[in-house]
Amino acid sequence: MEKINFAPGKTIFKKGDKADGLYIVGNGKVGIFFPTNHELIEPDITLGATEIFGEMGVIDTAPRMATAKALEETTVVYCSEKDFEEKLAGSDVVIRGVMAILSDRLRELQKRR
Amino acid sequence: MEKINFAPGKTIFKKGDKADGLYIVGNGKVGIFFPTNHELIEPDITLGATEIFGEMGVIDTAPRMATAKALEETTVVYCSEKDFEEKLAGSDVVIRGVMAILSDRLRELQKRR
Repeated sequence: MEKINFAPGKTIFKKGDKADGLYIVGNGKVGIFFPTNHELIEPDITLGATEIFGEMGVIDTAPRMATAKALEETTVVYCSEKDFEEKLAGSDVVIRGVMAILSDRLRELQKRR
Repeated sequence: MEKINFAPGKTIFKKGDKADGLYIVGNGKVGIFFPTNHELIEPDITLGATEIFGEMGVIDTAPRMATAKALEETTVVYCSEKDFEEKLAGSDVVIRGVMAILSDRLRELQKRR
C-alpha cells in the first residue's frame, strides 16, 4: 500500500488504462467520470475520505472503464492487486470464498454487456 | 457456524424460503435447482466439498431464488448472516470495503431483473 498525492485536476487513471489495483481516498475529493462523460468537467460521482474506487482492478484484468481525477488537493492510498491478494490470503476462508463468488459473478455480468 | 446432516434427496432450502445465511459443503454432494427447473430431478449445478452456496443470504434480504437438495448423504456447514458479519468485522478494512461494494453492485443488478 502506498500513499500518492494529486494536485487539483490531475488524472489518477483514465478509461482504457491498465488496471492493477484499487484506491482509497485519504484526504480530498475524487471525481469519477463515466465513459459517456466526454467533457470530463462535471464528475458523475464524487468520492471523499475512506471511499474506495477502481476496485475492479483487483478482481478483473480488464482495463479501466472510467476516468478518476483529483477534484482538489488529494491523497489516495493505492492497494495493488498483489497487496489485495495478500490481504485476502490472510482472511477467513468463508470471506475468501464469498469474495471469489461475487467477483466471478460480476466478471460474468461485465462480459455480457 | 453449525454442521448439519442431510439424507439423500432432502431439501436444504427451497425457492422462496427466508435467506439468512450461507452453506459450505463438507461431505457429500448438493444439487442446485434453478427457478425454471420445476421437476427438481436433474440439478442445474452440482457442488462438492468446500463449495459455497446460498451466499446471497448474507448480502441481501431477498428470499432464496433457487432450491438446494442433498444428492447423497451430505454434511454442510451453515454460516448465519450474524456469523458472516462477525468474520467480516474481523477482516482487513480494504477487504470489508471491497465486499461492501461488490455486494451493493450485485444487489442493484438483482433488483433490475
